[in-house]
Amino acid sequence: MLGAIEAGGTKFVCAVGDDDFKIIDKISFPTTYPEETLQRIFNFFDIYANLNAIGIGSFGPIDTNKKSEKYGYITSTPKTNWRNFNFLGEMKRHYSIPIGWTTDVNAACLGEYEVGSASYNNSCLYLTVGTGIGGGAILNGTIVEGFGHTEMGHIIIRNHPDDDFEGVCPYHKNCLEGLAAGPSIEKRYGVKAENLDSNHKIWGILAYYLAQALVNYTLILRPEKIILGGGVMNQASMLDLVKEEFSLLLANYIETPDLDSYIVRPSLGNNVGIAGGLILAHQIL
Amino acid sequence: MLGAIEAGGTKFVCAVGDDDFKIIDKISFPTTYPEETLQRIFNFFDIYANLNAIGIGSFGPIDTNKKSEKYGYITSTPKTNWRNFNFLGEMKRHYSIPIGWTTDVNAACLGEYEVGSASYNNSCLYLTVGTGIGGGAILNGTIVEGFGHTEMGHIIIRNHPDDDFEGVCPYHKNCLEGLAAGPSIEKRYGVKAENLDSNHKIWGILAYYLAQALVNYTLILRPEKIILGGGVMNQASMLDLVKEEFSLLLANYIETPDLDSYIVRPSLGNNVGIAGGLILAHQIL
Repeated sequence: MLGAIEAGGTKFVCAVGDDDFKIIDKISFPTTYPEETLQRIFNFFDIYANLNAIGIGSFGPIDTNKKSEKYGYITSTPKTNWRNFNFLGEMKRHYSIPIGWTTDVNAACLGEYEVGSASYNNSCLYLTVGTGIGGGAILNGTIVEGFGHTEMGHIIIRNHPDDDFEGVCPYHKNCLEGLAAGPSIEKRYGVKAENLDSNHKIWGILAYYLAQALVNYTLILRPEKIILGGGVMNQASMLDLVKEEFSLLLANYIETPDLDSYIVRPSLGNNVGIAGGLILAHQIL
Repeated sequence: MLGAIEAGGTKFVCAVGDDDFKIIDKISFPTTYPEETLQRIFNFFDIYANLNAIGIGSFGPIDTNKKSEKYGYITSTPKTNWRNFNFLGEMKRHYSIPIGWTTDVNAACLGEYEVGSASYNNSCLYLTVGTGIGGGAILNGTIVEGFGHTEMGHIIIRNHPDDDFEGVCPYHKNCLEGLAAGPSIEKRYGVKAENLDSNHKIWGILAYYLAQALVNYTLILRPEKIILGGGVMNQASMLDLVKEEFSLLLANYIETPDLDSYIVRPSLGNNVGIAGGLILAHQIL
Protein backbone atom coordinates (compact mmCIF):
# COMPACT_ATOMS: atom_id res chain seq x y z
CA MET A 1 0.00 0.00 0.00
CA LEU A 2 1.22 3.50 -0.86
CA GLY A 3 0.78 6.77 1.02
CA ALA A 4 0.59 10.33 -0.27
CA ILE A 5 0.59 13.75 1.37
CA GLU A 6 -0.45 16.89 -0.44
CA ALA A 7 0.89 19.51 1.93
CA GLY A 8 -0.70 22.81 1.02
CA GLY A 9 -0.42 26.15 2.74
CA THR A 10 -4.17 26.13 3.45
CA LYS A 11 -4.97 22.44 3.82
CA PHE A 12 -3.32 19.06 3.96
CA VAL A 13 -4.63 16.01 2.15
CA CYS A 14 -3.45 12.54 3.14
CA ALA A 15 -4.35 9.39 1.25
CA VAL A 16 -3.47 5.76 0.84
CA GLY A 17 -3.73 3.97 -2.47
CA ASP A 18 -2.92 0.71 -4.23
CA ASP A 19 -0.19 -0.01 -6.77
CA ASP A 20 -2.46 1.24 -9.58
CA PHE A 21 -2.66 4.58 -7.74
CA LYS A 22 -6.31 4.06 -6.93
CA ILE A 23 -7.22 5.99 -3.78
CA ILE A 24 -8.43 3.71 -0.97
CA ASP A 25 -8.80 6.22 1.85
CA LYS A 26 -8.38 9.97 2.04
CA ILE A 27 -8.56 12.72 4.63
CA SER A 28 -8.24 16.48 4.48
CA PHE A 29 -7.68 19.02 7.29
CA PRO A 30 -6.61 22.65 7.60
CA THR A 31 -2.92 23.57 7.83
CA THR A 32 -2.45 24.91 11.35
CA TYR A 33 0.90 24.62 13.09
CA PRO A 34 3.42 21.83 12.48
CA GLU A 35 2.96 19.77 15.67
CA GLU A 36 -0.81 19.57 15.32
CA THR A 37 -0.70 18.91 11.60
CA LEU A 38 1.90 16.15 12.07
CA GLN A 39 -0.26 14.49 14.69
CA ARG A 40 -3.17 14.42 12.25
CA ILE A 41 -0.90 12.90 9.60
CA PHE A 42 0.26 10.21 12.04
CA ASN A 43 -3.31 9.50 13.16
CA PHE A 44 -4.27 8.85 9.55
CA PHE A 45 -1.35 6.70 8.40
CA ASP A 46 -0.72 4.78 11.63
CA ILE A 47 -3.85 2.69 10.98
CA TYR A 48 -2.26 1.21 7.85
CA ALA A 49 0.30 -1.35 9.00
CA ASN A 50 1.12 -2.46 5.46
CA LEU A 51 2.21 0.95 4.16
CA ASN A 52 5.31 0.57 1.95
CA ALA A 53 6.24 4.15 1.15
CA ILE A 54 4.91 7.71 1.36
CA GLY A 55 5.28 10.46 -1.25
CA ILE A 56 5.08 14.09 -0.11
CA GLY A 57 4.36 17.06 -2.35
CA SER A 58 4.80 20.13 -0.18
CA PHE A 59 4.19 23.86 -0.36
CA GLY A 60 7.49 25.71 -0.29
CA PRO A 61 10.04 26.82 -0.84
CA ILE A 62 11.53 23.58 0.41
CA ASP A 63 15.04 22.17 0.46
CA THR A 64 15.32 19.30 -2.02
CA ASN A 65 19.11 19.23 -2.23
CA LYS A 66 20.23 15.90 -0.79
CA LYS A 67 23.68 17.31 -0.07
CA SER A 68 22.22 20.11 2.06
CA GLU A 69 22.04 20.06 5.85
CA LYS A 70 18.47 21.29 5.54
CA TYR A 71 17.32 18.65 3.07
CA GLY A 72 13.69 17.92 3.86
CA TYR A 73 12.98 21.29 5.44
CA ILE A 74 10.32 23.81 4.51
CA THR A 75 12.53 26.89 4.30
CA SER A 76 11.64 30.57 3.79
CA THR A 77 7.83 30.39 3.62
CA PRO A 78 5.76 33.41 4.67
CA LYS A 79 3.86 30.98 6.97
CA THR A 80 6.11 31.68 9.94
CA ASN A 81 5.06 28.59 11.97
CA TRP A 82 6.43 26.43 9.21
CA ARG A 83 9.63 28.30 8.46
CA ASN A 84 12.71 26.10 8.84
CA PHE A 85 10.55 23.13 9.78
CA ASN A 86 12.18 19.74 9.22
CA PHE A 87 9.08 18.13 7.74
CA LEU A 88 10.76 15.14 6.12
CA GLY A 89 12.93 14.57 9.19
CA GLU A 90 9.89 14.43 11.50
CA MET A 91 8.15 12.04 9.14
CA LYS A 92 11.23 9.81 9.04
CA ARG A 93 11.45 9.79 12.84
CA HIS A 94 7.95 8.31 12.92
CA TYR A 95 8.01 5.98 9.91
CA SER A 96 10.86 3.68 8.91
CA ILE A 97 9.70 3.33 5.30
CA PRO A 98 10.96 5.21 2.21
CA ILE A 99 9.53 8.73 2.04
CA GLY A 100 9.67 10.77 -1.16
CA TRP A 101 10.03 14.54 -0.94
CA THR A 102 9.28 17.14 -3.58
CA THR A 103 7.26 20.30 -4.18
CA ASP A 104 3.48 20.34 -4.57
CA VAL A 105 3.79 21.36 -8.21
CA ASN A 106 6.41 18.70 -8.97
CA ALA A 107 4.06 16.11 -7.47
CA ALA A 108 1.23 17.45 -9.62
CA CYS A 109 3.49 17.28 -12.65
CA LEU A 110 4.35 13.68 -11.84
CA GLY A 111 0.65 12.87 -11.56
CA GLU A 112 -0.17 14.37 -14.97
CA TYR A 113 2.91 12.67 -16.45
CA GLU A 114 2.06 9.21 -15.23
CA VAL A 115 -1.73 9.01 -15.30
CA GLY A 116 -2.95 12.38 -16.63
CA SER A 117 -2.64 14.58 -19.71
CA ALA A 118 0.96 13.55 -20.44
CA SER A 119 0.59 9.84 -19.78
CA TYR A 120 1.73 8.92 -23.28
CA ASN A 121 4.74 11.24 -23.24
CA ASN A 122 8.36 10.90 -22.13
CA SER A 123 8.49 14.42 -20.75
CA CYS A 124 6.17 17.20 -19.69
CA LEU A 125 5.94 20.51 -17.91
CA TYR A 126 3.11 21.48 -15.56
CA LEU A 127 2.40 25.13 -14.80
CA THR A 128 -0.21 26.40 -12.38
CA VAL A 129 -1.33 30.01 -12.66
CA GLY A 130 -3.33 31.26 -9.72
CA THR A 131 -2.45 33.39 -6.70
CA GLY A 132 1.12 32.40 -7.54
CA ILE A 133 2.76 30.76 -10.53
CA GLY A 134 4.61 27.51 -10.05
CA GLY A 135 5.97 24.95 -12.45
CA GLY A 136 7.50 21.52 -12.48
CA ALA A 137 8.95 19.37 -15.21
CA ILE A 138 9.67 15.70 -15.82
CA LEU A 139 12.26 14.50 -18.33
CA ASN A 140 12.52 10.75 -18.95
CA GLY A 141 10.55 9.96 -15.82
CA THR A 142 12.71 12.10 -13.53
CA ILE A 143 11.75 15.37 -11.84
CA VAL A 144 13.91 18.24 -13.11
CA GLU A 145 15.96 19.55 -10.20
CA GLY A 146 19.60 20.22 -9.44
CA PHE A 147 20.89 22.42 -6.63
CA GLY A 148 17.27 22.65 -5.50
CA HIS A 149 13.77 22.63 -6.98
CA THR A 150 12.79 24.85 -9.87
CA GLU A 151 11.11 28.23 -9.45
CA MET A 152 9.60 28.64 -12.88
CA GLY A 153 7.15 31.33 -11.82
CA HIS A 154 9.83 33.92 -11.25
CA ILE A 155 11.52 34.02 -14.65
CA ILE A 156 12.27 37.37 -16.25
CA ILE A 157 9.97 38.39 -19.08
CA ARG A 158 9.25 41.50 -21.14
CA ASN A 159 6.41 43.88 -20.31
CA HIS A 160 3.60 43.93 -22.88
CA PRO A 161 3.77 47.13 -24.98
CA ASP A 162 0.32 48.14 -23.64
CA ASP A 163 1.07 47.25 -20.02
CA ASP A 164 3.25 49.52 -17.95
CA PHE A 165 2.26 47.82 -14.69
CA GLU A 166 5.28 47.65 -12.40
CA GLY A 167 4.52 44.17 -11.05
CA VAL A 168 3.82 42.87 -7.54
CA CYS A 169 6.58 40.34 -6.86
CA PRO A 170 8.27 41.41 -3.60
CA TYR A 171 11.60 40.16 -4.96
CA HIS A 172 11.52 41.00 -8.68
CA LYS A 173 8.49 43.26 -9.19
CA ASN A 174 7.82 42.45 -12.86
CA CYS A 175 8.88 38.80 -13.16
CA LEU A 176 6.29 36.37 -14.58
CA GLU A 177 4.47 35.91 -11.26
CA GLY A 178 4.67 39.64 -10.54
CA LEU A 179 2.92 40.45 -13.82
CA ALA A 180 0.64 37.50 -14.55
CA ALA A 181 -0.60 35.87 -11.32
CA GLY A 182 -3.95 36.69 -9.69
CA PRO A 183 -2.67 39.38 -7.27
CA SER A 184 -1.28 41.44 -10.18
CA ILE A 185 -4.80 41.63 -11.61
CA GLU A 186 -6.31 42.71 -8.28
CA LYS A 187 -3.58 45.35 -7.93
CA ARG A 188 -4.25 46.69 -11.43
CA TYR A 189 -8.04 46.77 -11.31
CA GLY A 190 -9.06 46.36 -7.67
CA VAL A 191 -11.12 43.25 -8.43
CA LYS A 192 -10.41 39.56 -8.66
CA ALA A 193 -9.60 38.11 -12.07
CA GLU A 194 -12.86 36.12 -12.26
CA ASN A 195 -14.85 39.37 -12.00
CA LEU A 196 -13.36 40.85 -15.15
CA ASP A 197 -15.27 40.55 -18.39
CA SER A 198 -14.13 37.87 -20.82
CA ASN A 199 -13.25 40.51 -23.42
CA HIS A 200 -11.24 42.68 -21.01
CA LYS A 201 -7.83 43.55 -22.47
CA ILE A 202 -6.05 41.96 -19.50
CA TRP A 203 -6.58 38.44 -20.88
CA GLY A 204 -4.56 39.18 -24.00
CA ILE A 205 -1.85 40.74 -21.86
CA LEU A 206 -1.70 37.73 -19.53
CA ALA A 207 -1.61 35.40 -22.51
CA TYR A 208 1.40 37.33 -23.84
CA TYR A 209 3.22 36.88 -20.52
CA LEU A 210 2.38 33.21 -20.18
CA ALA A 211 3.34 32.56 -23.80
CA GLN A 212 6.76 34.16 -23.22
CA ALA A 213 7.28 31.83 -20.29
CA LEU A 214 6.19 28.84 -22.36
CA VAL A 215 8.57 29.82 -25.18
CA ASN A 216 11.46 29.99 -22.72
CA TYR A 217 10.55 26.71 -21.03
CA THR A 218 10.26 25.13 -24.47
CA LEU A 219 13.69 26.35 -25.59
CA ILE A 220 15.37 25.37 -22.30
CA LEU A 221 13.67 22.02 -21.67
CA ARG A 222 11.97 20.88 -24.88
CA PRO A 223 9.14 19.06 -23.07
CA GLU A 224 6.79 16.92 -25.15
CA LYS A 225 3.77 18.49 -23.47
CA ILE A 226 2.91 21.59 -21.43
CA ILE A 227 -0.04 21.38 -19.07
CA LEU A 228 -1.58 24.65 -17.87
CA GLY A 229 -3.64 24.61 -14.70
CA GLY A 230 -4.71 27.03 -11.97
CA GLY A 231 -7.50 29.53 -11.50
CA VAL A 232 -6.38 32.07 -14.10
CA MET A 233 -6.57 29.37 -16.77
CA ASN A 234 -10.29 28.94 -16.00
CA GLN A 235 -10.97 32.03 -18.12
CA ALA A 236 -12.58 30.34 -21.12
CA SER A 237 -10.48 31.89 -23.88
CA MET A 238 -7.09 31.85 -22.09
CA LEU A 239 -5.77 28.56 -23.44
CA ASP A 240 -6.41 29.62 -27.04
CA LEU A 241 -4.96 33.09 -26.45
CA VAL A 242 -1.80 31.57 -24.98
CA LYS A 243 -1.42 29.24 -27.96
CA GLU A 244 -1.80 32.15 -30.39
CA GLU A 245 0.81 34.28 -28.62
CA PHE A 246 3.14 31.29 -28.27
CA SER A 247 3.01 30.69 -31.98
CA LEU A 248 3.79 34.36 -32.76
CA LEU A 249 6.68 34.53 -30.29
CA LEU A 250 8.34 31.24 -31.22
CA ALA A 251 8.10 32.21 -34.92
CA ASN A 252 8.51 28.61 -36.09
CA TYR A 253 12.10 28.59 -34.89
CA ILE A 254 11.94 25.01 -33.67
CA GLU A 255 9.53 22.19 -34.15
CA THR A 256 7.05 21.48 -31.40
CA PRO A 257 4.19 18.99 -31.29
CA ASP A 258 1.00 20.39 -32.86
CA LEU A 259 -0.02 23.21 -30.50
CA ASP A 260 -3.42 21.71 -29.71
CA SER A 261 -1.72 18.62 -28.33
CA TYR A 262 1.31 20.50 -26.95
CA ILE A 263 -0.33 23.11 -24.71
CA VAL A 264 -3.21 21.45 -22.90
CA ARG A 265 -5.35 21.43 -19.78
CA PRO A 266 -4.70 19.13 -16.82
CA SER A 267 -6.90 16.05 -16.62
CA LEU A 268 -6.66 14.95 -12.98
CA GLY A 269 -8.48 17.88 -11.36
CA ASN A 270 -8.27 18.06 -7.57
CA ASN A 271 -6.71 14.61 -7.31
CA VAL A 272 -3.54 15.59 -9.14
CA GLY A 273 -1.44 16.19 -6.01
CA ILE A 274 -2.43 12.94 -4.34
CA ALA A 275 -1.93 10.99 -7.55
CA GLY A 276 1.56 12.49 -7.81
CA GLY A 277 2.31 11.61 -4.19
CA LEU A 278 1.32 7.97 -4.71
CA ILE A 279 3.47 7.81 -7.86
CA LEU A 280 6.40 9.36 -6.03
CA ALA A 281 5.98 6.78 -3.27
CA HIS A 282 5.98 4.02 -5.87
CA GLN A 283 9.11 5.40 -7.58
CA ILE A 284 11.20 5.22 -4.42
CA LEU A 285 10.21 1.67 -3.49
CA MET B 1 38.85 2.17 -27.73
CA LEU B 2 36.43 5.09 -28.06
CA GLY B 3 35.84 7.41 -31.00
CA ALA B 4 34.65 11.04 -31.03
CA ILE B 5 33.54 13.43 -33.76
CA GLU B 6 33.27 17.15 -33.21
CA ALA B 7 31.25 18.13 -36.26
CA GLY B 8 31.50 21.88 -36.65
CA GLY B 9 30.17 24.07 -39.40
CA THR B 10 33.73 25.15 -40.31
CA LYS B 11 35.81 22.11 -39.43
CA PHE B 12 35.48 18.54 -38.28
CA VAL B 13 37.66 16.98 -35.60
CA CYS B 14 37.86 13.20 -35.25
CA ALA B 15 39.69 11.45 -32.45
CA VAL B 16 40.13 8.11 -30.73
CA GLY B 17 40.79 7.81 -27.03
CA ASP B 18 41.03 5.30 -24.22
CA ASP B 19 38.56 4.59 -21.41
CA ASP B 20 40.08 7.44 -19.37
CA PHE B 21 39.19 9.78 -22.25
CA LYS B 22 42.86 10.34 -23.07
CA ILE B 23 43.21 11.25 -26.74
CA ILE B 24 45.34 8.73 -28.65
CA ASP B 25 44.99 10.06 -32.18
CA LYS B 26 43.26 13.11 -33.64
CA ILE B 27 42.66 14.65 -37.05
CA SER B 28 41.00 17.85 -38.19
CA PHE B 29 39.79 18.88 -41.65
CA PRO B 30 37.51 21.55 -43.14
CA THR B 31 33.77 20.96 -43.42
CA THR B 32 33.08 20.75 -47.16
CA TYR B 33 30.18 18.69 -48.47
CA PRO B 34 28.78 15.59 -46.78
CA GLU B 35 30.14 12.87 -49.09
CA GLU B 36 33.73 14.15 -48.93
CA THR B 37 33.58 14.81 -45.19
CA LEU B 38 32.17 11.36 -44.51
CA GLN B 39 34.94 9.76 -46.54
CA ARG B 40 37.52 11.55 -44.40
CA ILE B 41 35.76 10.36 -41.26
CA PHE B 42 35.78 6.78 -42.55
CA ASN B 43 39.46 7.02 -43.56
CA PHE B 44 40.34 8.07 -40.03
CA PHE B 45 38.30 5.57 -38.01
CA ASP B 46 38.62 2.55 -40.35
CA ILE B 47 42.23 2.10 -39.20
CA TYR B 48 41.05 1.31 -35.66
CA ALA B 49 39.62 -2.21 -35.67
CA ASN B 50 39.05 -2.24 -31.91
CA LEU B 51 36.73 0.77 -31.81
CA ASN B 52 33.83 0.10 -29.41
CA ALA B 53 31.64 3.18 -29.83
CA ILE B 54 31.64 6.66 -31.38
CA GLY B 55 30.15 9.83 -29.86
CA ILE B 56 29.14 12.64 -32.22
CA GLY B 57 28.61 16.25 -31.19
CA SER B 58 27.24 18.01 -34.26
CA PHE B 59 26.47 21.53 -35.42
CA GLY B 60 22.75 21.96 -35.91
CA PRO B 61 19.94 22.20 -35.59
CA ILE B 62 19.79 18.42 -35.57
CA ASP B 63 17.03 15.93 -34.89
CA THR B 64 17.62 14.20 -31.55
CA ASN B 65 14.10 12.88 -31.06
CA LYS B 66 14.33 9.09 -31.22
CA LYS B 67 10.65 8.85 -32.13
CA SER B 68 11.15 11.06 -35.19
CA GLU B 69 11.58 9.77 -38.75
CA LYS B 70 14.47 12.19 -39.10
CA TYR B 71 16.30 11.17 -35.93
CA GLY B 72 20.01 11.55 -36.66
CA TYR B 73 19.58 14.18 -39.38
CA ILE B 74 21.11 17.62 -39.56
CA THR B 75 17.95 19.60 -40.29
CA SER B 76 17.43 23.29 -41.15
CA THR B 77 21.04 24.52 -41.17
CA PRO B 78 21.96 27.52 -43.37
CA LYS B 79 24.75 25.28 -44.79
CA THR B 80 22.59 24.05 -47.66
CA ASN B 81 24.81 21.05 -48.53
CA TRP B 82 24.12 19.63 -45.12
CA ARG B 83 20.43 20.41 -44.85
CA ASN B 84 18.36 17.28 -44.24
CA PHE B 85 21.48 15.12 -44.22
CA ASN B 86 21.13 11.78 -42.42
CA PHE B 87 24.48 12.03 -40.68
CA LEU B 88 23.87 9.37 -38.01
CA GLY B 89 22.25 7.06 -40.56
CA GLU B 90 25.29 7.22 -42.87
CA MET B 91 27.61 6.57 -39.94
CA LYS B 92 25.52 3.57 -38.88
CA ARG B 93 25.56 2.18 -42.42
CA HIS B 94 29.35 2.11 -42.21
CA TYR B 95 29.91 1.08 -38.57
CA SER B 96 28.00 -1.57 -36.65
CA ILE B 97 28.97 -0.22 -33.22
CA PRO B 98 26.94 2.05 -30.88
CA ILE B 99 27.01 5.67 -32.06
CA GLY B 100 25.97 8.52 -29.76
CA TRP B 101 24.29 11.57 -31.26
CA THR B 102 23.90 15.01 -29.75
CA THR B 103 24.63 18.68 -30.42
CA ASP B 104 28.13 20.18 -30.30
CA VAL B 105 27.25 22.23 -27.24
CA ASN B 106 25.68 19.27 -25.42
CA ALA B 107 28.89 17.32 -26.08
CA ALA B 108 30.93 20.23 -24.72
CA CYS B 109 28.67 20.34 -21.67
CA LEU B 110 29.19 16.62 -21.13
CA GLY B 111 32.95 17.13 -21.34
CA GLU B 112 32.96 19.91 -18.73
CA TYR B 113 30.59 17.87 -16.56
CA GLU B 114 32.68 14.73 -16.54
CA VAL B 115 36.28 15.92 -16.66
CA GLY B 116 36.16 19.75 -16.67
CA SER B 117 34.89 22.62 -14.54
CA ALA B 118 31.84 20.71 -13.27
CA SER B 119 33.55 17.39 -12.61
CA TYR B 120 32.56 17.41 -8.93
CA ASN B 121 28.94 18.34 -9.58
CA ASN B 122 25.75 16.39 -10.27
CA SER B 123 24.48 18.92 -12.78
CA CYS B 124 25.74 21.78 -14.91
CA LEU B 125 24.90 24.13 -17.73
CA TYR B 126 27.36 25.14 -20.45
CA LEU B 127 26.78 28.28 -22.50
CA THR B 128 28.93 29.46 -25.37
CA VAL B 129 28.68 33.09 -26.45
CA GLY B 130 30.31 33.86 -29.78
CA THR B 131 28.94 34.32 -33.29
CA GLY B 132 25.91 32.54 -31.90
CA ILE B 133 24.75 31.57 -28.44
CA GLY B 134 24.21 27.92 -27.60
CA GLY B 135 23.69 26.06 -24.39
CA GLY B 136 23.46 22.55 -23.06
CA ALA B 137 22.67 21.13 -19.65
CA ILE B 138 23.25 17.90 -17.76
CA LEU B 139 21.08 16.82 -14.83
CA ASN B 140 22.14 13.68 -12.92
CA GLY B 141 24.46 12.58 -15.73
CA THR B 142 21.84 12.90 -18.45
CA ILE B 143 21.69 15.48 -21.23
CA VAL B 144 18.58 17.65 -20.91
CA GLU B 145 16.39 17.06 -23.96
CA GLY B 146 12.82 16.12 -24.65
CA PHE B 147 11.00 16.56 -27.95
CA GLY B 148 14.38 17.67 -29.33
CA HIS B 149 17.56 19.39 -28.18
CA THR B 150 17.50 22.67 -26.31
CA GLU B 151 17.93 26.06 -28.00
CA MET B 152 18.96 28.15 -25.03
CA GLY B 153 20.39 30.96 -27.13
CA HIS B 154 16.99 32.07 -28.39
CA ILE B 155 15.15 32.74 -25.15
CA ILE B 156 13.17 35.95 -24.77
CA ILE B 157 14.79 38.65 -22.62
CA ARG B 158 14.24 42.33 -21.84
CA ASN B 159 16.09 45.09 -23.64
CA HIS B 160 18.54 47.00 -21.43
CA PRO B 161 17.11 50.47 -20.57
CA ASP B 162 20.08 52.08 -22.42
CA ASP B 163 19.92 49.78 -25.44
CA ASP B 164 17.20 50.27 -28.02
CA PHE B 165 18.93 48.00 -30.53
CA GLU B 166 16.33 46.00 -32.43
CA GLY B 167 18.38 42.77 -32.55
CA VAL B 168 19.71 40.65 -35.40
CA CYS B 169 18.05 37.26 -34.96
CA PRO B 170 16.33 36.45 -38.26
CA TYR B 171 13.55 34.66 -36.34
CA HIS B 172 13.08 36.73 -33.16
CA LYS B 173 15.09 39.95 -33.68
CA ASN B 174 15.77 40.74 -29.99
CA CYS B 175 16.05 37.32 -28.39
CA LEU B 176 19.22 36.61 -26.37
CA GLU B 177 21.29 35.70 -29.43
CA GLY B 178 19.86 38.59 -31.40
CA LEU B 179 20.98 41.07 -28.73
CA ALA B 180 24.11 39.57 -27.18
CA ALA B 181 26.04 37.47 -29.71
CA GLY B 182 28.99 38.78 -31.74
CA PRO B 183 27.00 39.81 -34.84
CA SER B 184 24.79 42.12 -32.74
CA ILE B 185 27.92 44.06 -31.71
CA GLU B 186 29.14 44.33 -35.31
CA LYS B 187 25.72 45.53 -36.38
CA ARG B 188 25.64 48.16 -33.62
CA TYR B 189 29.16 49.54 -34.03
CA GLY B 190 30.50 48.26 -37.35
CA VAL B 191 33.46 46.54 -35.70
CA LYS B 192 34.07 43.17 -34.14
CA ALA B 193 33.62 42.82 -30.38
CA GLU B 194 37.33 42.31 -29.73
CA ASN B 195 38.08 45.73 -31.25
CA LEU B 196 35.96 47.59 -28.71
CA ASP B 197 37.66 49.13 -25.70
CA SER B 198 37.35 47.24 -22.42
CA ASN B 199 35.44 50.16 -20.84
CA HIS B 200 32.96 50.48 -23.73
CA LYS B 201 29.38 50.56 -22.44
CA ILE B 202 28.46 47.51 -24.55
CA TRP B 203 30.09 45.11 -22.07
CA GLY B 204 27.75 46.13 -19.28
CA ILE B 205 24.81 45.79 -21.64
CA LEU B 206 25.88 42.32 -22.76
CA ALA B 207 26.42 41.30 -19.13
CA TYR B 208 22.85 42.38 -18.37
CA TYR B 209 21.53 40.21 -21.20
CA LEU B 210 23.62 37.19 -20.29
CA ALA B 211 22.72 37.55 -16.60
CA GLN B 212 19.00 37.54 -17.49
CA ALA B 213 19.51 34.31 -19.37
CA LEU B 214 21.45 32.81 -16.46
CA VAL B 215 18.70 33.80 -14.02
CA ASN B 216 16.10 32.10 -16.19
CA TYR B 217 18.22 28.96 -16.67
CA THR B 218 18.81 28.89 -12.91
CA LEU B 219 15.10 29.14 -12.09
CA ILE B 220 14.10 26.56 -14.70
CA LEU B 221 16.90 24.00 -14.24
CA ARG B 222 18.67 24.74 -10.93
CA PRO B 223 22.08 23.53 -12.19
CA GLU B 224 24.90 23.23 -9.65
CA LYS B 225 27.27 25.07 -11.97
CA ILE B 226 27.11 27.34 -15.02
CA ILE B 227 30.11 27.38 -17.36
CA LEU B 228 30.47 30.34 -19.71
CA GLY B 229 32.63 29.93 -22.81
CA GLY B 230 32.96 31.43 -26.29
CA GLY B 231 34.71 34.45 -27.78
CA VAL B 232 32.59 37.16 -26.16
CA MET B 233 33.55 35.80 -22.74
CA ASN B 234 37.22 36.47 -23.54
CA GLN B 235 36.65 40.12 -22.67
CA ALA B 236 38.53 40.29 -19.39
CA SER B 237 35.84 41.86 -17.21
CA MET B 238 32.83 40.00 -18.66
CA LEU B 239 32.65 37.16 -16.16
CA ASP B 240 32.64 39.56 -13.20
CA LEU B 241 30.10 41.85 -14.87
CA VAL B 242 27.79 38.91 -15.51
CA LYS B 243 28.04 37.78 -11.87
CA GLU B 244 27.21 41.30 -10.64
CA GLU B 245 24.16 41.62 -12.88
CA PHE B 246 23.06 38.09 -12.01
CA SER B 247 23.12 38.90 -8.32
CA LEU B 248 21.06 42.08 -8.84
CA LEU B 249 18.47 40.35 -11.02
CA LEU B 250 18.02 37.23 -8.88
CA ALA B 251 17.66 39.44 -5.77
CA ASN B 252 18.47 36.56 -3.39
CA TYR B 253 15.19 34.90 -4.27
CA ILE B 254 16.68 31.42 -4.19
CA GLU B 255 19.91 29.98 -2.89
CA THR B 256 22.65 29.27 -5.40
CA PRO B 257 26.20 28.10 -4.80
CA ASP B 258 28.58 30.98 -4.03
CA LEU B 259 28.69 32.96 -7.30
CA ASP B 260 32.45 32.57 -7.76
CA SER B 261 32.04 28.81 -7.83
CA TYR B 262 28.64 28.90 -9.58
CA ILE B 263 29.39 30.96 -12.70
CA VAL B 264 32.79 29.90 -13.99
CA ARG B 265 35.00 29.53 -17.05
CA PRO B 266 35.39 26.29 -18.97
CA SER B 267 38.54 24.31 -18.23
CA LEU B 268 38.94 22.01 -21.21
CA GLY B 269 39.72 24.63 -23.89
CA ASN B 270 39.70 23.40 -27.48
CA ASN B 271 39.47 19.77 -26.41
CA VAL B 272 36.06 20.13 -24.84
CA GLY B 273 34.09 18.84 -27.83
CA ILE B 274 36.26 15.77 -28.32
CA ALA B 275 36.27 15.02 -24.61
CA GLY B 276 32.47 15.18 -24.67
CA GLY B 277 32.32 12.91 -27.70
CA LEU B 278 34.49 10.27 -26.01
CA ILE B 279 32.34 10.46 -22.87
CA LEU B 280 29.17 10.13 -24.93
CA ALA B 281 30.67 7.08 -26.63
CA HIS B 282 31.48 5.59 -23.24
CA GLN B 283 27.96 6.29 -21.92
CA ILE B 284 26.26 4.27 -24.68
CA LEU B 285 28.50 1.23 -24.38
